[in-house]
Amino acid sequence: MKDELLERFFNGETLAASKVMSLVEAGGEDAENILASLYTHTGRANRVALTGGTGSGKSTLAGALSRHYRAANKTVGVIAEDPTSPFTGGAILGDRIRIHRTSGDEGVFVRSIASRGSQTGFSTTAAELVDVLDAFGRDVILLETIGIGQLEHRIRHAADTTVVVMTPESGDEVQALKSGLMEVGDVFVVNKSDRPHADAFLRDVATTLELRGEGTDWQPPVVATVATGEEGIEDLVRAIAAHRSFLEDGERLQRRRHEGMRQRIRALAEEKLSGAFWGNRYIDGHFDGIFDDVISGQLSPHGAAAKLVKVFVECGKKPQ
Amino acid sequence: MKDELLERFFNGETLAASKVMSLVEAGGEDAENILASLYTHTGRANRVALTGGTGSGKSTLAGALSRHYRAANKTVGVIAEDPTSPFTGGAILGDRIRIHRTSGDEGVFVRSIASRGSQTGFSTTAAELVDVLDAFGRDVILLETIGIGQLEHRIRHAADTTVVVMTPESGDEVQALKSGLMEVGDVFVVNKSDRPHADAFLRDVATTLELRGEGTDWQPPVVATVATGEEGIEDLVRAIAAHRSFLEDGERLQRRRHEGMRQRIRALAEEKLSGAFWGNRYIDGHFDGIFDDVISGQLSPHGAAAKLVKVFVECGKKPQ
Repeated sequence: MKDELLERFFNGETLAASKVMSLVEAGGEDAENILASLYTHTGRANRVALTGGTGSGKSTLAGALSRHYRAANKTVGVIAEDPTSPFTGGAILGDRIRIHRTSGDEGVFVRSIASRGSQTGFSTTAAELVDVLDAFGRDVILLETIGIGQLEHRIRHAADTTVVVMTPESGDEVQALKSGLMEVGDVFVVNKSDRPHADAFLRDVATTLELRGEGTDWQPPVVATVATGEEGIEDLVRAIAAHRSFLEDGERLQRRRHEGMRQRIRALAEEKLSGAFWGNRYIDGHFDGIFDDVISGQLSPHGAAAKLVKVFVECGKKPQ
Repeated sequence: MKDELLERFFNGETLAASKVMSLVEAGGEDAENILASLYTHTGRANRVALTGGTGSGKSTLAGALSRHYRAANKTVGVIAEDPTSPFTGGAILGDRIRIHRTSGDEGVFVRSIASRGSQTGFSTTAAELVDVLDAFGRDVILLETIGIGQLEHRIRHAADTTVVVMTPESGDEVQALKSGLMEVGDVFVVNKSDRPHADAFLRDVATTLELRGEGTDWQPPVVATVATGEEGIEDLVRAIAAHRSFLEDGERLQRRRHEGMRQRIRALAEEKLSGAFWGNRYIDGHFDGIFDDVISGQLSPHGAAAKLVKVFVECGKKPQ
């Protein structure tokens, strides 16, 4: 069954790609086997992350970019973060698909993934789905994520180029720029640039970036767009292409991808370690007793945690 | 030295409290020992989290709340998240202290902590610093965090009451409300309620919350404020107090705190486990070789991670 699915996948069948992505998103052994089969077919696509706050218009921008790439005869894949609630499991961004739908064009493949509050889980799954679309042969892969300042390094390892999307309203974001977002962005977009104060905001961003750019090889450009009117899209495409050329000069792209792979292996190892820990029957058997000792004041929270880890490490020494 | 510090701490010396907090923030054995000594002195304070996006005015609101509680003769402690960049380590919110400074009043203690991109690390440290201020005898502890939708459950375990701060500009946040933020908030604030469309936004939030409240014991109130003008602060204080009374009815407060402690022990155990893993000399010795196998296509990223975890689990079985 799996071999047949992979055959259809490598033949370019959209339905097979959907099925593969569902298996990967579900995780577990099937996901790992499929990813292992795909992995050597990755590395060809141009991986672009678009990150911005809710309301920044990054989905509309991603839609405009998709249409632009399609017009240039490139195939496109889109992975969009859906900030599903960790409590109810309900998703909020059902209109993502609508934004990208280009009347049955199989050259655009759109997939939403739930972030479910688990940030490490999200970034790993996102990177894996990008791999799937890469192996599927998509030329450009857009990864849309919700920008939350210093957390944006979580998707850096999944993309070659990170585009940070802002709006003139968000004067406070220039502050955020100065911290997390600034360092993860390779290209900056001021979207909704037809709004009041857009010019002043654009200058602010440019000045901040110039200071940042000093002494580095890449000076991140700022592009003004109006995504709903498809204004500035060509400038953005050019800025993304310029960053790509920069990466392809020398070993930069390889270095970036290798560093990304190190990060990913680390994240996966932590996930698996954590799974082995909480799935361990000794941990399960000790948790309630240790918790009671904390509540009664006999053990501190740190002491409790240390005791659990000791139980886990030492159970490896016992005959199983 | 530590005993003397603790004596001064329990005597209410502000400098000793600062020193204890620095030790706790630095982590390690000293932090764990001090926390273990404090832990049985916690549980008395009213712990209130304020969460909202950058620009929502939650710091100004926290300042207004501090002054209000001080006027009612309550001592206040403030822990504020500083979204320090994971790359440069530079902090962006240096004016936090200024907002709270009440000309040398020792009844308000303000501390910024860096979130440094590590979300689990941040929430654990935040909870620990809240414990320190609780043991120090503060009546009310305000924990200011940057609201990022579904991630806000990360501080839920550190607070008894979570206040979600929004502004009328952020129409998109009603969307976010429908997912993560909605479920973590016990009290909702529409700040900057003198701005255009504030009434409509307020009604939207209220309607969403009414739907949520159906069938639950607590109906989260929505309070309109103008933090810069100190408008609506009394209403907010009343809403926070009402939630506190709700928690104190029956075993709700205890249940909430026990669940929080379970979460905290779990997070601490994962941190310690991860530390033991990456500090293990077998892992260190194997990482580069395993990474090279991934790059050469002999091993998938999942396979690499699984191999690392196996190395760790099995090294426990070897004679040390």
